[in-house]
Amino acid sequence: MRVAFLGLGQMGSGIARNILKAGHELTVWNRSPDKADVLVSAGARRAASPAAAAADAEIVCSMLADDHAVEAVVFGPDGLLSGGTAPLHAGHSTISVALARRLTEAGGGTYVSAPVFGRPPAAEAAQLNIIAAGPADAIDRAQPIFDAIGKQTFRLGEEPAHANVLKLCGNFLIMGALEAMAEALTLGAKNGLDKAALFDVLTGTLFGAPVFTNYKAALLEGQIRPAGFTAPLGLKDMALVGEAALAARVPMPVLGIVRDHLLQAIAVEGEDVDWAAVTTMVAANAGL
Amino acid sequence: MRVAFLGLGQMGSGIARNILKAGHELTVWNRSPDKADVLVSAGARRAASPAAAAADAEIVCSMLADDHAVEAVVFGPDGLLSGGTAPLHAGHSTISVALARRLTEAGGGTYVSAPVFGRPPAAEAAQLNIIAAGPADAIDRAQPIFDAIGKQTFRLGEEPAHANVLKLCGNFLIMGALEAMAEALTLGAKNGLDKAALFDVLTGTLFGAPVFTNYKAALLEGQIRPAGFTAPLGLKDMALVGEAALAARVPMPVLGIVRDHLLQAIAVEGEDVDWAAVTTMVAANAGL
Amino acid sequence: MRVAFLGLGQMGSGIARNILKAGHELTVWNRSPDKADVLVSAGARRAASPAAAAADAEIVCSMLADDHAVEAVVFGPDGLLSGGTAPLHAGHSTISVALARRLTEAGGGTYVSAPVFGRPPAAEAAQLNIIAAGPADAIDRAQPIFDAIGKQTFRLGEEPAHANVLKLCGNFLIMGALEAMAEALTLGAKNGLDKAALFDVLTGTLFGAPVFTNYKAALLEGQIRPAGFTAPLGLKDMALVGEAALAARVPMPVLGIVRDHLLQAIAVEGEDVDWAAVTTMVAANAGL
Amino acid sequence: MRVAFLGLGQMGSGIARNILKAGHELTVWNRSPDKADVLVSAGARRAASPAAAAADAEIVCSMLADDHAVEAVVFGPDGLLSGGTAPLHAGHSTISVALARRLTEAGGGTYVSAPVFGRPPAAEAAQLNIIAAGPADAIDRAQPIFDAIGKQTFRLGEEPAHANVLKLCGNFLIMGALEAMAEALTLGAKNGLDKAALFDVLTGTLFGAPVFTNYKAALLEGQIRPAGFTAPLGLKDMALVGEAALAARVPMPVLGIVRDHLLQAIAVEGEDVDWAAVTTMVAANAGL
Repeated sequence: MRVAFLGLGQMGSGIARNILKAGHELTVWNRSPDKADVLVSAGARRAASPAAAAADAEIVCSMLADDHAVEAVVFGPDGLLSGGTAPLHAGHSTISVALARRLTEAGGGTYVSAPVFGRPPAAEAAQLNIIAAGPADAIDRAQPIFDAIGKQTFRLGEEPAHANVLKLCGNFLIMGALEAMAEALTLGAKNGLDKAALFDVLTGTLFGAPVFTNYKAALLEGQIRPAGFTAPLGLKDMALVGEAALAARVPMPVLGIVRDHLLQAIAVEGEDVDWAAVTTMVAANAGL
Repeated sequence: MRVAFLGLGQMGSGIARNILKAGHELTVWNRSPDKADVLVSAGARRAASPAAAAADAEIVCSMLADDHAVEAVVFGPDGLLSGGTAPLHAGHSTISVALARRLTEAGGGTYVSAPVFGRPPAAEAAQLNIIAAGPADAIDRAQPIFDAIGKQTFRLGEEPAHANVLKLCGNFLIMGALEAMAEALTLGAKNGLDKAALFDVLTGTLFGAPVFTNYKAALLEGQIRPAGFTAPLGLKDMALVGEAALAARVPMPVLGIVRDHLLQAIAVEGEDVDWAAVTTMVAANAGL
Repeated sequence: MRVAFLGLGQMGSGIARNILKAGHELTVWNRSPDKADVLVSAGARRAASPAAAAADAEIVCSMLADDHAVEAVVFGPDGLLSGGTAPLHAGHSTISVALARRLTEAGGGTYVSAPVFGRPPAAEAAQLNIIAAGPADAIDRAQPIFDAIGKQTFRLGEEPAHANVLKLCGNFLIMGALEAMAEALTLGAKNGLDKAALFDVLTGTLFGAPVFTNYKAALLEGQIRPAGFTAPLGLKDMALVGEAALAARVPMPVLGIVRDHLLQAIAVEGEDVDWAAVTTMVAANAGL
Repeated sequence: MRVAFLGLGQMGSGIARNILKAGHELTVWNRSPDKADVLVSAGARRAASPAAAAADAEIVCSMLADDHAVEAVVFGPDGLLSGGTAPLHAGHSTISVALARRLTEAGGGTYVSAPVFGRPPAAEAAQLNIIAAGPADAIDRAQPIFDAIGKQTFRLGEEPAHANVLKLCGNFLIMGALEAMAEALTLGAKNGLDKAALFDVLTGTLFGAPVFTNYKAALLEGQIRPAGFTAPLGLKDMALVGEAALAARVPMPVLGIVRDHLLQAIAVEGEDVDWAAVTTMVAANAGL
């Protein structure tokens, strides 16, 4: 397929490379154009604007930092919609539920929300989990690209925003799971238990979920640098969860806790720590 | 082996039966003696007191309701220690860390803490996970009984109380996991997602832990009766977690939340609901 | 003075009337013009736009619903700044810290933040507490108006946004105080104490603050309708507090609680309840 | 009157001195007898046991550290009830609701709960607020003593435990008020406001309660040593609140927060800090 890819950060460049590897024709665009160099030397074309990248494409994929970036790329001058027609657009970014609804309305059936679970190494290894929601035929057309970049696509129905809600639920649950596990491990450690032994029993029985093994180094050794996903980005996502909860009238007390621990982590440790620093705040508050 | 078993509630009677099935000689005692009838007709002997049950036994196993019951059975008149000698004692009850330390001191090397994970059906099916801590030789001697009643024994070192800390951590994490998942599912439901679809994606990716599948009916259908483990019992365990956290100086904000939701569940729904009612409180507070 | 007043809701119309009463020349504007009828018949002039109202004024006062309304009135077409010059502007609305900073920058020394404490009856009675921050000479010029509408002006320095931070702190503390008092009263009531007697002793000793007497009917009788200030408006303010806390990296656990109780109040009771319904949620969650 | 006073700690010795000053005949007892020296040299008699102190007394007053101490003094050998009769007993200690009920039952109409609000300087100055509950005639008989030691007696009805519930509510509210105020001040400080100016406006308007002025040094200057009332004692009281809430089925989310901040204060700062250290934890978690 002829694919346009917008946004070449840590996640986006890994994803784009897999599209290229799978044999598709790739045009790329990034706000700072030099980020495209590696992909261009690997065979991609560089475009000067989102609109230019999309001009000839059968599908546009985007992976951008936040709502603001997506709004600029879609609704701005030289944005995807600036030409008057809406291309098929698979949005992989973690954005607000409200923006997903606005993209859906503006896209007239061409917009698919397709946020992903997985960190940069999973993006590079084409091992992402993709959550896709939107018109069935639009997802069908996008599926070859999803197959090239992920290990699994979960289809969640016709309403694009539903995929974004799910993504936010997932990120919230990562924080909630790490918070609770850190509290348990800290209680154990301050009672003289070996944290690793405690962790092994807990994850060897009722709590054997990938989320815990993914964050084992943070939970057991307090490793929060270098960041795979920074605390400020995590906080941004928790703010999106909070907005969605506020709009839908849903009290979420665990959200309050993880938000506060992210704030503490940033205030005390700095802006560069991994969002898993919620776990080291739990330990620090107990004097560890 | 000649085994004495003290405490024939829902969990204890299932466990005792498996000891009998495995070919051991079983003497049983229960505060209300009629609870022993079924086991007696299956071949067990009935004793009139804990001391009498223990008199001739190579090992004493106990599964009792709370600290108070364990104290009576061990330290009371006609209790395990009333004869002046301490039998090998495997304590399966969920008790306080403080009491575990007292039992250790009083037992002089004969006490093994061996709390279990698993609900009554797992007890009947000999599918419990057993957490054992205590002197290695004592655990070795108890191991044939553990093999008869569980699917796996996790050894956690020489300090009995450590097994109780782990058990409390586990019960706390069950509550914490259900609370967080319920918040996510409620956010999804109030945004129009199908709860079951959302649950399937979350547990099909990062959150694929048995704790969630075990409580699927509560999470998805709000089923909180009949109780497998009642909210007041869950609250009692959370109080034990709180005591341990207080003694060890460990702030545990998620504990505060689940405690409050258990209190709400009991205040609003009644004393008979399952402790998984924390999940229905989350939904109710969002107007569902 | 020649005064322009923008925004004639419950608070604004009461304030405007007092400006008129004090003998100033008043021009008013409101988005729905009929809200101005009463004031016009009392001697005020009606303007067709914010810019028109400001044209001839020595000072412009505004009391609007939210950030959005203030942005429209200041930065929009026919807004205060549309003519190229910035009039002296006293902003009484509860707005975000970020918008206060933007108004300061755009105003070039003419903007004073002057949020108020007090509900509609206090506005009508010229009994508001006014928190003023901005250039000293600008506040000096505005002081005769503040004297006409309030009982006291607190000056908080040169930085307008500081007044908005203080206002948000105050609204947060109202919620926090009501939440804590409601928890105490509920504990008392469920232990058989008379709530009114308990309240009288507490407010007769350490906790004798106006915030509690102001909300006595909600605390003691659960009176949450009709609303003096609705729960959705309170929630909007708590969201502003949350944004400020997020930007400044301040964990605020009590904020999480009151936000959740406001959400519960709206979800369960409806959009029309007073924000003091946080207190009835506390009681309801205990089964009262 | 002939008065026996049991418990001569910081609070008790100040109270006892005022009884003596008022012209009553005083017999004192303390577990470590040397604490009585000063009072004896001022005219009090020393007794060897609670029972001996009470032998000839018209009223017994007690001010002890915790439930355990009260139980020993009342129910122990040589305790108040060891002689078979129950003297009129005014209990000033902060104890559990459950123990108050037990004292009531055992006392047969002779027990009055009379906990106090006020720190040691208030005890010395006879400026305590006394909360009295119990049989009206018993309180009448105790009133002259209350008049000698306090500035005001609040009568709360016939049920002694109600006074203890109120005392726990009060101590909880102190913590809750300090927590919320600290959050507000921290938000202000991190936005550039002068904490003292912010505090003055807040306490000059809606929040003008003695609780805030009493703790001004902690709130504004972070002064948490020397302790007027230590964090571990405060934590003990919050645990009593928690037990009462658990027994009465009352969710109290603010209690969870202050408990966690007390735990953090002790874990991080040490056992010797004032319970107002909840406020410095709020600041520390924001990086101040």
